[in-house]
Amino acid sequence: MEIVIIGSGNVAAVLGRKFKAAGHQIVQIISRNASTASALAYEWDTESANYMILLNKQADLYIIAVPDDAIGEIAKDLRLPGKIVAHTAGAVSKEVLKSVTDHYGVFYPLQSLRKETMNTPVTPLFFEGSDEITSKTLESLAHSISPGQVTRAGSEERMKLHVAAVVVSNFTNYMYTLAEAYCKKEGLDFRQLLPLIEETALRLKDHSPKEVQTGPAIRHDKETIQKHIALLKDHPSLKNLYLILTESIQENLKF
Amino acid sequence: MEIVIIGSGNVAAVLGRKFKAAGHQIVQIISRNASTASALAYEWDTESANYMILLNKQADLYIIAVPDDAIGEIAKDLRLPGKIVAHTAGAVSKEVLKSVTDHYGVFYPLQSLRKETMNTPVTPLFFEGSDEITSKTLESLAHSISPGQVTRAGSEERMKLHVAAVVVSNFTNYMYTLAEAYCKKEGLDFRQLLPLIEETALRLKDHSPKEVQTGPAIRHDKETIQKHIALLKDHPSLKNLYLILTESIQENLKF
Repeated sequence: MEIVIIGSGNVAAVLGRKFKAAGHQIVQIISRNASTASALAYEWDTESANYMILLNKQADLYIIAVPDDAIGEIAKDLRLPGKIVAHTAGAVSKEVLKSVTDHYGVFYPLQSLRKETMNTPVTPLFFEGSDEITSKTLESLAHSISPGQVTRAGSEERMKLHVAAVVVSNFTNYMYTLAEAYCKKEGLDFRQLLPLIEETALRLKDHSPKEVQTGPAIRHDKETIQKHIALLKDHPSLKNLYLILTESIQENLKF
Repeated sequence: MEIVIIGSGNVAAVLGRKFKAAGHQIVQIISRNASTASALAYEWDTESANYMILLNKQADLYIIAVPDDAIGEIAKDLRLPGKIVAHTAGAVSKEVLKSVTDHYGVFYPLQSLRKETMNTPVTPLFFEGSDEITSKTLESLAHSISPGQVTRAGSEERMKLHVAAVVVSNFTNYMYTLAEAYCKKEGLDFRQLLPLIEETALRLKDHSPKEVQTGPAIRHDKETIQKHIALLKDHPSLKNLYLILTESIQENLKF
């Protein structure tokens, strides 16, 4: 397929690379950020542009991979009758693209994508289209870059997945961030925790997280909890969350 | 070395296997749990016993891998003059073993160990001893099973690592547990989140978590946060934590 990519951030860069690797042709990349756009255009041996007025209107498919609140802004001035247009946001309805074309949809990668990582991870894709042509096209595009990891999902299902993604990715990363700050202040090497962090994530392949919950909270181990709280006295924010999460674990889970 | 292992839970089982694989001899396993003890004894081709009175007193080294609150109880009635004795708990002082021998210490694996996993993960080890003989012996034992992952750490440092371990492992696993319960109730497949969970953990090899924090909280994306809260209306406990963690991220991190 001939594809135009709108946006030059992490999602645009990683999806573009995957499209190219799957044999599609990226005919243009459009972004207000001239330097990231031209870097990607150079990488993909294609052209870049910095204004929507320069948009190539001859492509088959337009992928809008920009921040959530910029999608509506772009859609407002965009008319691509007969073309297929999709955005990549988990938390935005497809209807935001209704005025652009009759063939609009969503192409949502449920993954943390970073352009500087060359080995991109397994990326489940969730698609929906305003009509069968759009759905079929997005589905086949999804299969071409993530075989076996493609699911049709309406806006509500996608939004719920997005909530769950925030919990398992943004909130866990925040736990890592708090632990890193704690280690730094206490003179410990945060990197010594990486094997534990990896194992905690990777064991989910074989176990439900509920079955493998351990630690002083679920054991109601008051002595250890008290020692921990004492060691968090110079870290009020982490101490507060420690208490809240410990209480929540004790209320919701049984050992 | 000739080693006696006291305990037959996850830590006892995994450390025992690692000792055996490194060429040490496990001369006895002692545990109140007769069935898990005899299963491990069979696996290691050694003998098991269920009462401390049957303890083999001819070994070089005794590893006490039992729940935190059972260590003191075992130590109370144990006398092993001249022998090296260590427990494996992150949050317990080595002094609990003071009455057992002059050569006591700690041998703490900073990892989530599970006996049913045959491929055990990289396991950083933290040791300390009451004297140089004990320290050197525990250090060399640690190197024999976790080469390059061995650190001397006093009780306070070990306890602080234990706090950090609770944050990055128990609390993140709780996030996974909450997300799994949410998915189940909403008819979503939690397993579709596994690639994201893995990537969030594995990218820490290349990035500080602080640098890669994303999501609606750090973006102060009120519209998405409001949508998410609405989708959590039937999940009061998760909704409450969502609000608390979002607020904490916004207070502590800058985009």
